[in-house]
This record gives sequence, C-alpha cells and structure tokens, in this order.
Amino acid sequence: MGRLQPGEGIAQTVAEIGEFGLIERIDKILREEAHPLPGNTLGIGDDCALFRPRNGYELLVTCDSLVEGRHYLPRFISPFDLGRRAMAMNISDIGAMGGRPLYALISLGLRADTPVVDLETVYRGFIAELSPFGASIIGGNLTGSEGANSIHITLMGEVPVGRALRRSSANPGDSILVTGYPGQAAAGLRVLLEAEAPDDVRHHPLVQVYNTPSHRAREGEAVALSGLATAMIDTSDGLLGDLGHICHGSGVGARLFLESLPVSPALKETARRMKEDPTDLALQQSDDYELIITCPPEHVDAIRSMVTSINRVPVAVIGSITPNSGRIIGMSPEGPPRDLSPSGWDHFSPGPHV
Amino acid sequence: MGRLQPGEGIAQTVAEIGEFGLIERIDKILREEAHPLPGNTLGIGDDCALFRPRNGYELLVTCDSLVEGRHYLPRFISPFDLGRRAMAMNISDIGAMGGRPLYALISLGLRADTPVVDLETVYRGFIAELSPFGASIIGGNLTGSEGANSIHITLMGEVPVGRALRRSSANPGDSILVTGYPGQAAAGLRVLLEAEAPDDVRHHPLVQVYNTPSHRAREGEAVALSGLATAMIDTSDGLLGDLGHICHGSGVGARLFLESLPVSPALKETARRMKEDPTDLALQQSDDYELIITCPPEHVDAIRSMVTSINRVPVAVIGSITPNSGRIIGMSPEGPPRDLSPSGWDHFSPGPHV
Repeated sequence: MGRLQPGEGIAQTVAEIGEFGLIERIDKILREEAHPLPGNTLGIGDDCALFRPRNGYELLVTCDSLVEGRHYLPRFISPFDLGRRAMAMNISDIGAMGGRPLYALISLGLRADTPVVDLETVYRGFIAELSPFGASIIGGNLTGSEGANSIHITLMGEVPVGRALRRSSANPGDSILVTGYPGQAAAGLRVLLEAEAPDDVRHHPLVQVYNTPSHRAREGEAVALSGLATAMIDTSDGLLGDLGHICHGSGVGARLFLESLPVSPALKETARRMKEDPTDLALQQSDDYELIITCPPEHVDAIRSMVTSINRVPVAVIGSITPNSGRIIGMSPEGPPRDLSPSGWDHFSPGPHV
Repeated sequence: MGRLQPGEGIAQTVAEIGEFGLIERIDKILREEAHPLPGNTLGIGDDCALFRPRNGYELLVTCDSLVEGRHYLPRFISPFDLGRRAMAMNISDIGAMGGRPLYALISLGLRADTPVVDLETVYRGFIAELSPFGASIIGGNLTGSEGANSIHITLMGEVPVGRALRRSSANPGDSILVTGYPGQAAAGLRVLLEAEAPDDVRHHPLVQVYNTPSHRAREGEAVALSGLATAMIDTSDGLLGDLGHICHGSGVGARLFLESLPVSPALKETARRMKEDPTDLALQQSDDYELIITCPPEHVDAIRSMVTSINRVPVAVIGSITPNSGRIIGMSPEGPPRDLSPSGWDHFSPGPHV
C-alpha cells in the first residue's frame, strides 16, 4: 500500500471516503469478485460473522500480521502481491496442520493518506489466494494508524476429526522430508536490498519467491488425510527453526544429511555471488512456506509421490529423527558432525525483518 | 502498556526476553491463571489452534483492535483495565448476536521497550473477562512495532442454530429498547481530558465507565434464546449510530421519544457542567457496550424483566420502528420533531478517538 504512481488511477485516500465508504468499497469487491459465501454464512455487516461448522470436522484457527517497514517494504512489493503474500502465510498454517481454508477476517491499520485503489488491490490479492479453496472473507475491522500500515489476518479452516497433523508427534527413527527449496525467500530479500533499484531484479527467481511465496496447503491436506505422516509444520521460521519446533514439541532430536538439503540452482548461484555457504542459506530463517514432514521410513515413497502429484513440487529426505531431545546434528561426507542450534525468527531482535 | 512505575517490578522489556521468551511467559499465565482448555482443544504452540465445534451450534466470529494513542492513552488506563476493555469490546459483539464467547486469539504489535510485566497484566485483564464464560485464549501472534503498541483480538463464540439475532430483522411497529446508560463513556473521556491530572478523576463514575465498560453479553444471550426480539446490536458506534445500523440493515426508520432516553444522574450533572444537552450526550458516539433491542410491543415486559433479572441493568423503551427507511425522528413534548441523521465512528476522520 502507498505505492500509487501519479496518474495511475483515482488518487482517493481512505480519509476522503471515510471508514463507512471504505467498508462499502470492500464489500462491493467481495460481492462481485470473491467466491460467493456458502449458505448459512453471514459475512460483513453485523456485530459478528456467523457460519455453521460441518459435522465431523474440527476447526483450525491461525492469525498472522504484516507490518509495513518490518515485514514488507512498499517499494519492493505491489499491493496485489502484498495481499497474496499476507494470505498465503495464513493458508500455509492451515495446510501445515492438514486443514482446508474456509473463512478469513481482515483487520487493517491504515494511514489516512493510503490510496483506496491500492487497498482494493490488496483485497484482490487476498481473494486470489482464497478463491481456489472456495474460501471467503467474512469479517474484519478498520482502524486508523499514525505510523505504519498493517494487515492482520485471522484464517479459519476445517480438518476431519482426528486428522490434524501436529508438530508434537514425531518419533525417533522417522524420516524427515521437506518440500521445495527453503531459504530462497531470505536470499530474494537480500537480492532486493542489494539491488540499485528494485525494478532491476523484479524478475529474479529468488525475488519472485520472496514476493509471491507458494504455500503447500493442498499437499499438507493430502498428507494429513493419508494418515501416513507423524508430524508436520511449515518452514515460516526457517528450516532449522521449524525443525527445532518439531524437536522441542515432540521431545526428540534430529540428524540432518547436509548434502541432501534441497538447494535450488538460483540459490546456489546467489550464494556463490554473496560468498555464502548455500547450505546455511537453506537452513536459516526465511519467509518460505514449505512443509517439513516426518514419517516412518516405509511411508516416504507414498508421501513423496502424493505431494509431487499435486503440484510437481520436489520432496527431499533430509535426515531422521533421533531420541536426543532438542539436539540437531548436521552430518556431511566432508567433515565432522556439526551441532546446529535451532534459531527462528525473533520479532523483537534488532534489524529489519521485511 | 508502557505504564510501569519505578520500583514496581522487574523492568524487563520485550526486547530483553525476546519473542520466544515472551511466548513462554504468556503461556505460563494462561496455564496457571486462565480457565483450562476444554478437551479436544489445542491452544498455543502449533501452526494453528484447533477445536471441535458443538453439534447444533453455529459459530460467531468478530475482531476488533485497540491502538495506543487512538483508542487508548496509557496515562489514562492501567494495563489490567486495558486488557479488560479490549476483551469486553469483543465479548459485547458476540453477545449482541446472542452468542456465548468460546475462544480468543490475540495479536499484539509491541515496541521493543514495552515492559513485560505490563504485558502480563494486560493478559490478566483478558483472562478476567473471559473466565466467567469458561472462554480461553487459544492462539495469537506477536510482532514488533516502531510506533504505537496495538492489540488485535479475534473472538469466537457459539449460538444455537437459528437463534442468532441480527441487526437486519427489525419490523415497523416494533418497540426500541436500550439497556443501561449509553453516552457515559464519551463523557468520561471528556472528564479525563479536561482534568488537571488523570488521578484526580480516576474514581469519577463516568471515567470508570470509560475505562472498564460493561458488556451485556449474558443479557444478549438470554434475549436471543427467548426468541422474543426481532433485532439486536451493541452501542459501540453510539446509540444513534447503531440505531442507524439497524434501520439501514432492516430497511426501516425509527421514532425516538427523546424524553425517554436513559440519562444517568452522573451524565446529567456532567452535561450541566459542560453546558451540553444531556440528550445529545446520550445519543452521540461513545465507547459504550449497551444493547439496542427491537421487539413487538407485547414482548417488551418479558424482555425487560429477563434482562433486569440477570444484572439489575435498567431497560428503557426509547421509541418505535417506522416504515420510513433510514429516517430517525426525535420527538419531544417541548418542541417540533427533530431529524436525527445517524452518525457513527469514522476511524479516519481527524482528531483523537481514544
């Protein structure tokens, strides 16, 4: 938001149309462009939204926030991609427990000078991510902000009773699988930060991963429904950070085969240019939304072909769960084992977290 | 938040203990001081929270935000009252549709220098409001802020299928009822703003209403379950603003008997001192969480005694619904009818909205 170029549209601001004017504009987009609400569902326009949960399903709920300047920089990301990214983060959380997204509530903190057209475009980004699931925006809240704009999403989903996959049920001996190429988003941000002008690198593959991250919600749902996996989590805190969450939650440890970590050609090339170890880039904190899955070794092939059939996303076996609670050891053919202490995002540590 | 006095505790900040340290502290308070989670419910600590909805119930969801400097001023409100007020606003929305609160998610935007003890106290305020309902905090999100602290709550509740009371179903001829004394909170804020020091007026009855507003969620639930009312809404946008929402949603108008508006002795006295018309104060925008209820005239007595029996809160009949869509007319014995154009909160209009 805040990216409107001169002449790009009607430069009306949220202050000019006011809160109720803005609600009407948002409501119009939802009615005309979003997936229609299912029966028995009450959307925006009353004290609460209302829906009837399906029998035989449990409800999943997650919330996540994006704050301008901390989690995104308007000069790097278009309003449409911002909306997509904000929603994809939340869809990833639902999928990482095996659920399917149903309903979103959007709470926005907005500066008075925010262009309405940018805001409408952000909503189109939300809708672009929700519609493939038949999921809808059913409520929200608008508030003014003196400082940064911010987006706060609460997303609800459903999962058949007893099928949710938690992070706390990995067992020693389980294989550790990861989808796609974690670490690309953080590298993409560095490419952006180091570029002379953002437009010069807009089509860089890592920048694209950073700006429009893929979630693996369909894959996560299939894995959970299969009953073949023991634990699952998304990599939003980085591969090592989230593997650490599985270890902590399950009271186990992990052995990682560092040479098996999936490193994309683009990440390899960028690591070389940045004089970084590509393995470190793949392990560290990064805004990726891949899945870490643990399962008994005999189910690896079934899970891999299930995931690959949905989206052609690669699945790598990167290690195995050990009984050594909390310890993650990196093994490599070239050197001695490395103790990899888990680290994740700390949103209060200094420095930008965009 | 940000109100810690010297020597009042360990002045640890959120930056010092970090995100994961803070999550542990919050988790500890929830485990030790909050209502225990029901079975089949997964709280903080995974990608999502999870619960099993009850058969025969619909789910209600609402979200609301409080931003420091816009919706509250730390020098006026203690961290405990801030937590209570933030949660009461959301509980009011659930109750205004006839529901009972179940689960909350809390998303906080925090400056690095926010004292941890203040934050813990805010959570104790949340818990104080949720526990009487057996409701629990099951998730949330923490993010850093460079500017104002902010609290974003999503609250879910349940209502028996088909019993939710909307704002869109009032009928011409219905009586209009209101609980308690709307308008007191806005007057309480003015008392605070005009005081030499906030402490001088801390015990002023209107200031107390402003800082620790009552919701009418139990009353709203009883009214909805009775099936006697046609529409209901809370007065969070002011009596006139929310009556306007009922009129707009139901395609009706209203006739108000201005001499019947409930004006508390404290509001009367303060209006006199401020040289304001107490009727205007009762009608205008104000952070109160009373209920407006519409019902056929023959059900007024039953609804009134039902509400009064729960909490001794007075219920006034203030007018009736008319077929004149969108028009609200004020009648008084002393003068001609007044056209009262509805106004509500506009969160982007200039000026403080605390």
